[in-house]
Amino acid sequence: MNRTETGQGPFLRQAWYAAASSDEVGAGLLARTLLNEPVLLYRLESGEPVALLDRCAHRFAPLSLGRRCGDEVVCPYHGMRYGPDGVCTQVPGQATVPARARVHRYPTLERYGLVFVWMGDPARADARHLVSIAQYGQAGWGLSRGHALFHACLDNILDNLIDPAHTTYVHPRTIGSDAGADVAVQAELEGADTLVCGRWVNDAPAVPMVQRFAPPDGPVDRWQFYRVRLPCTSWVDFGSLPAGSPHTPEAMDAAPYRVISYAFLTPQDAEHTHYFSFQLRNFAADDGAVTAEFNALYRATFDEDRVLLEAIQREERRAPGTAPTRIASDAGVARLRRMAHAWREAEQPHATAAAPHQRTPDLGG
Amino acid sequence: MNRTETGQGPFLRQAWYAAASSDEVGAGLLARTLLNEPVLLYRLESGEPVALLDRCAHRFAPLSLGRRCGDEVVCPYHGMRYGPDGVCTQVPGQATVPARARVHRYPTLERYGLVFVWMGDPARADARHLVSIAQYGQAGWGLSRGHALFHACLDNILDNLIDPAHTTYVHPRTIGSDAGADVAVQAELEGADTLVCGRWVNDAPAVPMVQRFAPPDGPVDRWQFYRVRLPCTSWVDFGSLPAGSPHTPEAMDAAPYRVISYAFLTPQDAEHTHYFSFQLRNFAADDGAVTAEFNALYRATFDEDRVLLEAIQREERRAPGTAPTRIASDAGVARLRRMAHAWREAEQPHATAAAPHQRTPDLGG
Amino acid sequence: MNRTETGQGPFLRQAWYAAASSDEVGAGLLARTLLNEPVLLYRLESGEPVALLDRCAHRFAPLSLGRRCGDEVVCPYHGMRYGPDGVCTQVPGQATVPARARVHRYPTLERYGLVFVWMGDPARADARHLVSIAQYGQAGWGLSRGHALFHACLDNILDNLIDPAHTTYVHPRTIGSDAGADVAVQAELEGADTLVCGRWVNDAPAVPMVQRFAPPDGPVDRWQFYRVRLPCTSWVDFGSLPAGSPHTPEAMDAAPYRVISYAFLTPQDAEHTHYFSFQLRNFAADDGAVTAEFNALYRATFDEDRVLLEAIQREERRAPGTAPTRIASDAGVARLRRMAHAWREAEQPHATAAAPHQRTPDLGG
Repeated sequence: MNRTETGQGPFLRQAWYAAASSDEVGAGLLARTLLNEPVLLYRLESGEPVALLDRCAHRFAPLSLGRRCGDEVVCPYHGMRYGPDGVCTQVPGQATVPARARVHRYPTLERYGLVFVWMGDPARADARHLVSIAQYGQAGWGLSRGHALFHACLDNILDNLIDPAHTTYVHPRTIGSDAGADVAVQAELEGADTLVCGRWVNDAPAVPMVQRFAPPDGPVDRWQFYRVRLPCTSWVDFGSLPAGSPHTPEAMDAAPYRVISYAFLTPQDAEHTHYFSFQLRNFAADDGAVTAEFNALYRATFDEDRVLLEAIQREERRAPGTAPTRIASDAGVARLRRMAHAWREAEQPHATAAAPHQRTPDLGG
Repeated sequence: MNRTETGQGPFLRQAWYAAASSDEVGAGLLARTLLNEPVLLYRLESGEPVALLDRCAHRFAPLSLGRRCGDEVVCPYHGMRYGPDGVCTQVPGQATVPARARVHRYPTLERYGLVFVWMGDPARADARHLVSIAQYGQAGWGLSRGHALFHACLDNILDNLIDPAHTTYVHPRTIGSDAGADVAVQAELEGADTLVCGRWVNDAPAVPMVQRFAPPDGPVDRWQFYRVRLPCTSWVDFGSLPAGSPHTPEAMDAAPYRVISYAFLTPQDAEHTHYFSFQLRNFAADDGAVTAEFNALYRATFDEDRVLLEAIQREERRAPGTAPTRIASDAGVARLRRMAHAWREAEQPHATAAAPHQRTPDLGG
Repeated sequence: MNRTETGQGPFLRQAWYAAASSDEVGAGLLARTLLNEPVLLYRLESGEPVALLDRCAHRFAPLSLGRRCGDEVVCPYHGMRYGPDGVCTQVPGQATVPARARVHRYPTLERYGLVFVWMGDPARADARHLVSIAQYGQAGWGLSRGHALFHACLDNILDNLIDPAHTTYVHPRTIGSDAGADVAVQAELEGADTLVCGRWVNDAPAVPMVQRFAPPDGPVDRWQFYRVRLPCTSWVDFGSLPAGSPHTPEAMDAAPYRVISYAFLTPQDAEHTHYFSFQLRNFAADDGAVTAEFNALYRATFDEDRVLLEAIQREERRAPGTAPTRIASDAGVARLRRMAHAWREAEQPHATAAAPHQRTPDLGG
């Protein structure tokens, strides 16, 4: 199927993008814009989620304004029916269905309480390209989650999520503190697409969230490992140990406070990005009050990022030729931009929008 | 007079466009944007409606922000006075009036409770170009009316109004029903500028509005004839007879339920269109409660169209290169687009905006 | 320092522009957009006002979202510190500060209850370029003031402020009256940059504000002298004397009613302009009730201008090629536009945006 009609921007397409939380996708028809394409999401009677281009092939009416008929969807304008494979099965008033009467079906994958959509070549869709999360659903790990829309582009959000240094200044009420101000950050590649920037801040007071949920007796050594897996996944591994503890994986597993915060980022369009997130914590796993407080605190924390990133985007739009002044803590940012650039070149070698799902970097996996 | 300054888009200009309902035009100064031009409407002491370019020749202040002085209008900024012919009669502070100090006067025509404005060459304005409505004001015919602004372009609204097939899916609560789903539509030219698409749906249950106002004893034969007269007029002739009745004009005249719904469409700009409408019904002519209910039901029905057409316009703007997939019920649509294209070519043979009112197709009439 | 990154429009830059009232600038961080540049305003502990480009050199975060640390400002994103000279003094996480890590410091000048910012070459900033106001702060002169944002460009506002003729039509409730309708206006240059348009309207009833605050026994001679000093300053000298009085400076000084109304205009961007104003009156100098009434009446008067100027701007944008029809009262307008054009040519001889603060007309002074 040809999808050159979608007019998308230079988004990276060969990836699983989070489209909705599992509980948003049900018997109804959910409309969402992803990579500047209108996408219809619903759940088959079997429970399987379906994602179709939300634009009737006839006159472009959103199918999401129509209705379901079993597992099929009926266009609100002239009653054309589409099966869950995107193929039109019936055109009222005529005996045959035109070959062009179909809409793109995006491969879907439901995991971690989210419905992911593959925005590139369906033949390349493979569940192994989704990040694997060992702790998800495991006993002893509590879960909180959220969803926001940022008026900021994906690149700027990724900058923020590969950058432990900003927490001192942006998040002093939750996950940052002055103690980290001058501790340098190391950037390192993990496999082809994942960059990690991290540091240990040692022998310092615990940050506010640790003080709140696992108050230590004295100073702590704390770690921050910020990972971004291109093009759209981030996870931040954060925890603290009594100062002087060994910094081994075993000690980190047994730490009194460890939170791994995942973010799945999906461009809505060139200006806006969906921010789906959840946190796994290694304490109070089944305590609903703690979960509620985590939801609220992480929402406030991401709002602090959002306000800044939206202001930065306004300034970038206002002064498009201005070059940033790089500082030491940008090591991860600069490297990540180069990796994304290489991916984009691989997807779109001639900077043309023609048949973008045909071109793909080697995804490994 | 030269009006090349108006910056209009590729609108068809040689036509009467509805500008306002008669009761909107009175002693006050009414501002309305038509074909992306600012138009001032008011009524002379003689009762005649006047339409002037709502932009002082001096510094472009809207005359509608000024005041009347008898039949003249005084600019709010420097007190320049304009007569109802658009010619400036006085410039305060100087003895003479510059020859350029005039604004376009649009020819007007008041009929059917509406004030129409001729947007093209005034020399071509002729009342015979307006559609002639035999039933209007006749005993036995009731009248309901409405006005809405659609965030949709004229072309897409005309598509909707030459298309009986959509009623099954868009208007099942008022004027459509499942029974019509598979009945084919015939398109036919009536004179140079009018296309009619129609069908009979026979031996079927009556649609909701017939059930409400003229409930039949059994199944009915119903007709739908959708007419568009370029560039901006539509009327839908709808009625039902006991199943098996002859389908003759005489039988249709005597039908227990017949409604002719007129729509006069006037682009505000490239994105928005005024939708002036009225319905003539052949029953309960003087029953105010029925009129009120008709007003409400037709408003709801047109809102159903509006929601769809606005969504379609968003999709067209998002994916400008996408081609629609044509289906059988588009016979009228495709033909109407070709007719409009020919008209536009006749008005603007070199695709230039210079002096558009000089170029005109043969309007007949 | 190079400021070619700011992307400004063709604004005239070599001037003092009002940025804020004195009481808006204090211990906090005030963000304001001037000439399409983000400007941060705050007051040093010494009381001196400071204006910096409100965009961190690193990643463009607005410094106004950060915090003060003594006289320094800390970026909200990564804690970079800037001194009041715009030079970065500290980058957390690294020992040295990159040479490019600085933001423009705009020269400031505080006078007349306003903070002015020099938007051009700092080497040219000179307090003598600001208008000198003899009556400000003098005994016997009362003061009222206001601030508004007009959705209108500077040029159109200056047209309005060099034009005594409009008061008859726009301000009949405060400072205009029919009596002035046909009295011609004289335009005259005062020095290189100041144009004055004025007239005497003799032996006529007083205008409403004079009737309100200094009701005369009989008819009056009144003067209106409208001055614009390029690029951004206006003052209107208005007063009235008993009819038949000599029109000498001494008589005007001793008039029962004289008001000099200053306006300091600062483009926010190409579409919006800050309008800082104050009025000096030669009566009831210390009467707070009169001051409150002046604030309200002048606000209403400027709102009358604002509504018109915003409508005019919409029409100019709608029909960009349309030429105004000039009338006699435009003598000042046309001359002022030519003066502004010459200034712009002097600042930007090659119509390039490169290093605009390097180019400057001879400012005299």
